[in-house]
Amino acid sequence: MAEHIVQFANLQASARVPTGTLLTEAAQQAGVRLNQPCGGQGRCGRCAVQIVQGQVRSRSTLRLGAEDIARGFVLACQAVVEGDVVVDIPPQEKIERRLTTDRTVAAVSPPAHYDPAIHQTLQRLSLQLKPPNMDDQTDDWSRLKWALEKRLGRGQVEAPLAVLQKIGPALRQGDWTVTVVVEDPSWDFCDDCPANLLDIQPGLAPADTPLWGIAVDIGTTTVSLWLVDLLSGVVKAQVAEYNRQISRGEDVISRIIYANKNHGAEELRQLVLETINELVERACRRTKINAADIYKAAITGNSTMMHLLLGLPTNSIRLAPFVTTVNNLPLLRAGEVGIHIHPQATVDCLPGVASYVGADITAGVLSSGMADTDKITLFLDVGTNGETVLGTRDWLVTCACSAGPAFEGGGVLDGMRATRGAIEEVWVHSQTYEPSWRVIGNVRPKGICGSGLISLLAELFITGVIDKGGHFNSHLQSPRVRKGEHGWEYVVAWGHETAHGRDITLSHVDVDNLIRAKGAIYAGFTVLSESVGVPLETVEQVLIGGSFGKYINVEKAIHLGLLPDMPWEHFQFLGNTSVKGAYLALLDRTQRARVQDIASSMTYLELSADNRFYEAFTSALFLPHTNLNKFPSVARALA
Amino acid sequence: MAEHIVQFANLQASARVPTGTLLTEAAQQAGVRLNQPCGGQGRCGRCAVQIVQGQVRSRSTLRLGAEDIARGFVLACQAVVEGDVVVDIPPQEKIERRLTTDRTVAAVSPPAHYDPAIHQTLQRLSLQLKPPNMDDQTDDWSRLKWALEKRLGRGQVEAPLAVLQKIGPALRQGDWTVTVVVEDPSWDFCDDCPANLLDIQPGLAPADTPLWGIAVDIGTTTVSLWLVDLLSGVVKAQVAEYNRQISRGEDVISRIIYANKNHGAEELRQLVLETINELVERACRRTKINAADIYKAAITGNSTMMHLLLGLPTNSIRLAPFVTTVNNLPLLRAGEVGIHIHPQATVDCLPGVASYVGADITAGVLSSGMADTDKITLFLDVGTNGETVLGTRDWLVTCACSAGPAFEGGGVLDGMRATRGAIEEVWVHSQTYEPSWRVIGNVRPKGICGSGLISLLAELFITGVIDKGGHFNSHLQSPRVRKGEHGWEYVVAWGHETAHGRDITLSHVDVDNLIRAKGAIYAGFTVLSESVGVPLETVEQVLIGGSFGKYINVEKAIHLGLLPDMPWEHFQFLGNTSVKGAYLALLDRTQRARVQDIASSMTYLELSADNRFYEAFTSALFLPHTNLNKFPSVARALA
Repeated sequence: MAEHIVQFANLQASARVPTGTLLTEAAQQAGVRLNQPCGGQGRCGRCAVQIVQGQVRSRSTLRLGAEDIARGFVLACQAVVEGDVVVDIPPQEKIERRLTTDRTVAAVSPPAHYDPAIHQTLQRLSLQLKPPNMDDQTDDWSRLKWALEKRLGRGQVEAPLAVLQKIGPALRQGDWTVTVVVEDPSWDFCDDCPANLLDIQPGLAPADTPLWGIAVDIGTTTVSLWLVDLLSGVVKAQVAEYNRQISRGEDVISRIIYANKNHGAEELRQLVLETINELVERACRRTKINAADIYKAAITGNSTMMHLLLGLPTNSIRLAPFVTTVNNLPLLRAGEVGIHIHPQATVDCLPGVASYVGADITAGVLSSGMADTDKITLFLDVGTNGETVLGTRDWLVTCACSAGPAFEGGGVLDGMRATRGAIEEVWVHSQTYEPSWRVIGNVRPKGICGSGLISLLAELFITGVIDKGGHFNSHLQSPRVRKGEHGWEYVVAWGHETAHGRDITLSHVDVDNLIRAKGAIYAGFTVLSESVGVPLETVEQVLIGGSFGKYINVEKAIHLGLLPDMPWEHFQFLGNTSVKGAYLALLDRTQRARVQDIASSMTYLELSADNRFYEAFTSALFLPHTNLNKFPSVARALA
Repeated sequence: MAEHIVQFANLQASARVPTGTLLTEAAQQAGVRLNQPCGGQGRCGRCAVQIVQGQVRSRSTLRLGAEDIARGFVLACQAVVEGDVVVDIPPQEKIERRLTTDRTVAAVSPPAHYDPAIHQTLQRLSLQLKPPNMDDQTDDWSRLKWALEKRLGRGQVEAPLAVLQKIGPALRQGDWTVTVVVEDPSWDFCDDCPANLLDIQPGLAPADTPLWGIAVDIGTTTVSLWLVDLLSGVVKAQVAEYNRQISRGEDVISRIIYANKNHGAEELRQLVLETINELVERACRRTKINAADIYKAAITGNSTMMHLLLGLPTNSIRLAPFVTTVNNLPLLRAGEVGIHIHPQATVDCLPGVASYVGADITAGVLSSGMADTDKITLFLDVGTNGETVLGTRDWLVTCACSAGPAFEGGGVLDGMRATRGAIEEVWVHSQTYEPSWRVIGNVRPKGICGSGLISLLAELFITGVIDKGGHFNSHLQSPRVRKGEHGWEYVVAWGHETAHGRDITLSHVDVDNLIRAKGAIYAGFTVLSESVGVPLETVEQVLIGGSFGKYINVEKAIHLGLLPDMPWEHFQFLGNTSVKGAYLALLDRTQRARVQDIASSMTYLELSADNRFYEAFTSALFLPHTNLNKFPSVARALA
């Protein structure tokens, strides 16, 4: 059978496949992950790709517009390879290549021109010292310190007591040859600033001994950890796990309330430490390294997560005027924080801006690149808090709104987190109102997660099951729309189809909660844009971060009025921008200095004190909005 | 009955007493402590004082020379007051006023011109902050830090995690008024150096709230601790206790050997910490203060004691080439060291010079004032190690010799530490060879302590019981001199006189050990003086430190050849110079800088590598010395 070459040009990947292969199969062979939320049935339109050279046979173009088809777009799950072909993956799909599960290492490239000798604050050095004798009885530490200062060409090296305790035996066991790990924590290449000795071992270390670090993002829901080779910048393992604090509250507010109970704060601190330490262990097991060889951690997370990790009180975050204990933390040691890596390892907590704009956002802004572009950029972190940043390289304003947990499955009767058994995407037939859905893990559904809720709500609205006010159309001839225990509701899955035997439904109460959540987020960025006099229409790109943002269907999110109505190519899904920012700061002192600049230059807009927010919020409590002129593409779709 | 005024002119003390009062009684009433090692029997000559105005009736002038009598000297215990009189206490007696026991506070005056605002590195400040509001959501730490930096007029204030954890509650409980303890640890009034926040408490502190510190000297035998009001410089309590490590070895060498056993080092560390913590508790109980209100500790001790306290290995101190791990320690925190004061309290370990010239000696040089004088000074710390420093304000050389524990009662059959039941001074009748002695606590004797051994050996030599080689005169007609189990011996106390019913004796083996100990000390300072070309005769003052030094009888020590033959007034007994130096460094940053200068400018002479030492040592293995020309006063006494 004839073979053809399929090139995924913008991803520098390719596959050699026989005639008749589907593009999705070729992509899989080339290591390119394409979204197929509908399971490859050509129903969801999420696998749209552009043929830039050659041709494919397209079995279905359902969910593609005429314009898209004219531009060469096809649905990869419906496109049969019959000759050599060059394919481009559009941005919102391409980015998903980076989405990582616990089992894969995403293709994160070290920053260009990364040179550990310049950018990395840590160094491992071997030193051969002149042994003492009766004419030179210099104490061990002075002997080592002077040699180190000479080698480093700097004025001062300091050592904590725990390291001083190891010096004597190391020097003698190594016959006056030792290997040290030393850190110059200054970001500005300051020669006068003291460097710190973090460890000493007897003997020479092989030149290629890696130096390990971890980047950690403490999400309210998920903790992500990257294990990084600090000499090459290569990410060796990416692991993630639910934050064990979830069992004590699903959002930051309920965590703060829990922390105020007796021993609650300490319990939450232990729970997040257990989560982090399990991830450290898992990453180390997988890469066969010793956790004590990890000498640095860069940590991000929202302000509440950071405070809980460090045993800082959180109550003032919850109560007006919403003040944190500390936004800029000093460098800490792993031993004092409780992270099970080298006890002297530096723990660098990235800076936050305010109670609800934390280090996760400054790190996100850093890694998104929005602070390095002239383009007017809107950065959204669509999590429970709904943080928004608007700006360019010259200015940054930020706000947060309490979107609530609806998009994470909270406050919705059949809502659930995005785990196995969650309906993550829904399609509703415009004539029969019958749904089809895709379930995480391809098992019987147990409930609906955030992306499934967005998808479902948009489909119900577009097919007329609910109106722009979120009210159910009681005149529809469908058993799916009925009056249930909680009022009108739509049946997504019948009991005989579900894991637990009960119907999965979306009630008008759930719809109200979802509309309130999307309304808060939309109101947040519209007020932000108004307050700085930069109309939304002038925004040149929308960068969406957060693990939640990974799965949002842009079209449907616009239909709901969650995202502003812009061409799809304006949107980029960046996945977990927070851990990526931590990774950059972990590697590169100039990036670390940059995130500090970002934090201190960001202007924070407190929405809870802003009447405009309530007005904008009220106007946004419709699908997509009171003013349909703001959503011309939705108006067209409804027409 | 007529009353008279007795003035102790040079001590600015006086008493009004009736006719017939003894000068010693008048002294006691005036708060002046005079030595009466023979119990006030006029036998020891240690209470000699000079009448500078008026007259007394002298019952006995035994042990005073004709010249002394001509100059107005009397024995205070034999001098009856019969009119107004002005008395001068000679230096070697006067200094003993400073000798402190656990139960008394010695008259230590704060340094002249002491100003805590300038000299003290710690400050307690109360701050009234503007509370946050919706227009000013500055984080707590920035709010406090900026206010502090403004108040202190300096660039940077830092806080450890443990203090950051307390900020939020303190600010809110105190309604935005807080009291902080802040430290600027720089010695050079550096405005750019960061200051550290050690503590924060809600509300205002009364202006007169004291700020507490402790000065600690960790002796091999005794740990001394002074509790100091850092605002006035006043010493509020002085406590001392045996170092609990004694049970694991009496000298530093046996401690190091013990430390090398399994868990031995950790055990010794715990033992000295227990000792220090008990002293802290005792000082606090006595002054009714809370240990958590102590924010600073200055610590001295020999290098082995410092290393054991801090968990640093000690084996290299014992083995050639005799190297410490670290002579200059960084500032530590009480929590990490294990001292039960405020956990963030600064622990400032004073600098050492070498394995056998530690922080106790640099502190001793500081407090003795020898580094501030043009007089050629010999400083002796007559402990187990026998450290010696020779020099002036312009130069300092130092050495240590292993005197061994003989002067502390070790290696001598009936030797004991200077505790209750120890014979501390002995007089031997020159015709009958019958002894009389004074016992600590006025109880039946159990043994002989260091000063008693010096006294006894000198008496035996002067009365001819032993010859210059330390051999017993076997022809004496006295039951006191006999051949015992261990060869020839002298019976100091018969069994019916002692606490344990056994004879207390000094054998020829004991005599050999004592001669070796005094020979080592003498050889140390003679080699030191030769090596720098400064003959002993040019030495203008001899300062004797160490708790041992407190009790030495100069005359007898010269008779032995332990101290060089100089006029008595050249000698000054300074008591515990080490804890005094710690006290000065605790109070005054310029003194702290000075002790650092002293440590780095001292030239250390390693005697174990020096043949001259062995020659000098061999020559000194006689009473007082091979060359009697070096001891003209002894030659006269013998004649």
